[in-house]
Amino acid sequence: MTGLCTDMYEVRMAAAYLRRAMAGPATFSLFARRLPADRGFLVAAGLAEALDFLEGFRFEEDEVEYLRQVAALDARSLAALREMTFTGDVWAVPEGRLVFADEPLLEVTAPFAEAQLVETAVLNVITFGTTVASKAARCRLAAPDAELIDFAFRRTQGLGAAATVARCSAIAGFAATSNLAAARRYGLRPSGTMAHSYVEAFPDERSAFRAFATDFPDHPIFLVDTYDTEAGLHAAVDVAAELGRIDRLGVRLDSGDLAVLAGRARQILDAGGLRHATIVASGGLDEHAIAALVAQGAPIDAYGVGTKMGVSADAPSLDSAYKLVAYGDRPVMKLSTGKVTWPGTKQVYRHPRADEGDVLALREEPAPSGREPLLVPVMLGGRRTEPGDPAGDLRAARDRCATELHWLPAAARRLTGPVPVPVHATTPLHTLAARLTAKLCAG
Amino acid sequence: MTGLCTDMYEVRMAAAYLRRAMAGPATFSLFARRLPADRGFLVAAGLAEALDFLEGFRFEEDEVEYLRQVAALDARSLAALREMTFTGDVWAVPEGRLVFADEPLLEVTAPFAEAQLVETAVLNVITFGTTVASKAARCRLAAPDAELIDFAFRRTQGLGAAATVARCSAIAGFAATSNLAAARRYGLRPSGTMAHSYVEAFPDERSAFRAFATDFPDHPIFLVDTYDTEAGLHAAVDVAAELGRIDRLGVRLDSGDLAVLAGRARQILDAGGLRHATIVASGGLDEHAIAALVAQGAPIDAYGVGTKMGVSADAPSLDSAYKLVAYGDRPVMKLSTGKVTWPGTKQVYRHPRADEGDVLALREEPAPSGREPLLVPVMLGGRRTEPGDPAGDLRAARDRCATELHWLPAAARRLTGPVPVPVHATTPLHTLAARLTAKLCAG
Repeated sequence: MTGLCTDMYEVRMAAAYLRRAMAGPATFSLFARRLPADRGFLVAAGLAEALDFLEGFRFEEDEVEYLRQVAALDARSLAALREMTFTGDVWAVPEGRLVFADEPLLEVTAPFAEAQLVETAVLNVITFGTTVASKAARCRLAAPDAELIDFAFRRTQGLGAAATVARCSAIAGFAATSNLAAARRYGLRPSGTMAHSYVEAFPDERSAFRAFATDFPDHPIFLVDTYDTEAGLHAAVDVAAELGRIDRLGVRLDSGDLAVLAGRARQILDAGGLRHATIVASGGLDEHAIAALVAQGAPIDAYGVGTKMGVSADAPSLDSAYKLVAYGDRPVMKLSTGKVTWPGTKQVYRHPRADEGDVLALREEPAPSGREPLLVPVMLGGRRTEPGDPAGDLRAARDRCATELHWLPAAARRLTGPVPVPVHATTPLHTLAARLTAKLCAG
Repeated sequence: MTGLCTDMYEVRMAAAYLRRAMAGPATFSLFARRLPADRGFLVAAGLAEALDFLEGFRFEEDEVEYLRQVAALDARSLAALREMTFTGDVWAVPEGRLVFADEPLLEVTAPFAEAQLVETAVLNVITFGTTVASKAARCRLAAPDAELIDFAFRRTQGLGAAATVARCSAIAGFAATSNLAAARRYGLRPSGTMAHSYVEAFPDERSAFRAFATDFPDHPIFLVDTYDTEAGLHAAVDVAAELGRIDRLGVRLDSGDLAVLAGRARQILDAGGLRHATIVASGGLDEHAIAALVAQGAPIDAYGVGTKMGVSADAPSLDSAYKLVAYGDRPVMKLSTGKVTWPGTKQVYRHPRADEGDVLALREEPAPSGREPLLVPVMLGGRRTEPGDPAGDLRAARDRCATELHWLPAAARRLTGPVPVPVHATTPLHTLAARLTAKLCAG
């Protein structure tokens, strides 16, 4: 079932094109109109899922029958949908690279009906992947020397969203996830400690810690704040001494003043001979909370980051668009108030020095010297240019993201009031836009 | 694949319980600790998906093998997981009813390991369903006389989230959805107009409208703001006159000052003899924007509500919790800073007059007279008490929600600064909490 994974109007428009033999090719460009407040960059993500969708795109017989009933389609359109697969080309910014407003994340060129029908799903998965990877990258920037763990599964927007969150936070540099299904699928390190309910299920904290360390002697992490955090820390030290394990222990702090408690935890652990024991902090964290803890010098080794990262709480979506930029050999643009789009099939060029800015060009223009194109062909004639590989694609994306975050200037990295890298449109692109605007206003 | 749809720590804790024959029964209570800012109520939703998950809960052989590799589980635990299904009881607030802070949405009583392993997925789907239904209900309250249409599919947090959004907005009173897959699955009315790209694909607006009305003569809706809205409205009137269709036409406004443009649209349509033509507004709407349009008397018949509803933009998650409240015959509570929970298995009682407040009681207490219990048994011994029925369950939930929104006092309905219905804990519940607190502090 993938064909019905679309909006009603896509099907109606596709049928209108099929009826009239308006067979394309059309190019749609997917981009963010603007960055959310306090975002200095976006991390491209979601492409692998989009390509999976496109490869599997088809209407089953029962879906065609449903459309016959509800969408008032003619027999010719229904017959065309029954045979349809996605046969188009996709150029995209590889996952993990950074993008800015107006830069295409992806361009689809396909017979008009196909390009239209896949809009909803492609826009959805690229928007969400990019939203989450961008949020996670901010957490990564907030604590460059700590380990980050995805704890978001329980409060993402649905079970499917959790897999995307695990994957996209890994692209942004998270080291592990609590999500077992996603860890398995994407080859991530699964991570988990214990819950307050675990501690409560035993007669006392010491019993709970002792049982856990006995069961999982490889780096057990004790949750020390179920009753009283200081007492919990002493219990952890006592159990470690009793079991003779002083190297690979960890403690988790999930409530209270984490900076103060982490300092106290470090003291108690060190005094107990547990200098190598790690301190994990969690509980409602986001990039700002993490940055504040780092700024206070809190001796925290790892952060479990949950809900606020997993739903990108301050910016849970993007002002993304999937706009027709060319039909046949004709570049297209739209003039709705506040929603002007750049026409034509495009390319983005990046300079090794970020302060040079990016260049937004027509794809047909010659490449500016010393710059690298961001959009690469990832699907041609409906087939991936390289076979999908869940774990391998993710590792490559993670490497790209680390490189690009290093490239990013300090002003664009700031968590508040960032200044994005500028994007300069070329003269041919400006000229084309001016020509089309004049024509539209005259018409 | 459902067993691995959980957090790593759930599996480790479950294994610890299985090893020690800590077999239960444990009761976990799922509730919101507090309402998000500016929320006066929550609409319970997500239960159907939670019960689907529980019915299908099992570990496949390859999942058990994965756990053997990554989670350091012992042979006894692995054997137990291999055989495990969910055999517990679930009491829940039916979907569509309203709930307030601290009121259980759901309580699971099951052998300890089972109740623990299902935490992540149950918490996820109830939290997200309730988040979205609550947001959608606010849109419903903002425009009680208009039709609302779910336009969120393209920017929900993943493709799975879109189905939940279509379903939960329907529970809250939305009349239709653009999401074809969800419309089919849940028996909803699919709705769709045309996109700007459709208009751009034709030589001019009139050609685009003419083609659309010819293809879909049953209530075509023309998008009139691709170039110039007034010109688009005149084109709509001309095409309607040309085709001799004056009754079932609609126009959609997707940008600009919607209040002004809707007034102008009404004038132009009326002057063109299209008094029955409807006006649909869309474009970044939420409950506040809708309320402002209603307050200005904008003649809008239907609102297409997208991203901000679909991700619950101002409150994309809830401060929800799934807390151990009883183990064996022992009520349990937790004292972490700022996170005190009510102990024991509970019931909530509601009075026909909302200003009487709700009563939060231990489940074993006798029911107060004149009040109705909210929590009902929905699963006993791992089986639903009534068979799941996607379309029927949704209709029942929608009816409940409409009734409950009517019951809700004006102060709790307010979109800003609402005052939720008060929740009073009974004396036995207070007494139990005090006794356990004293015991914990003494211990």
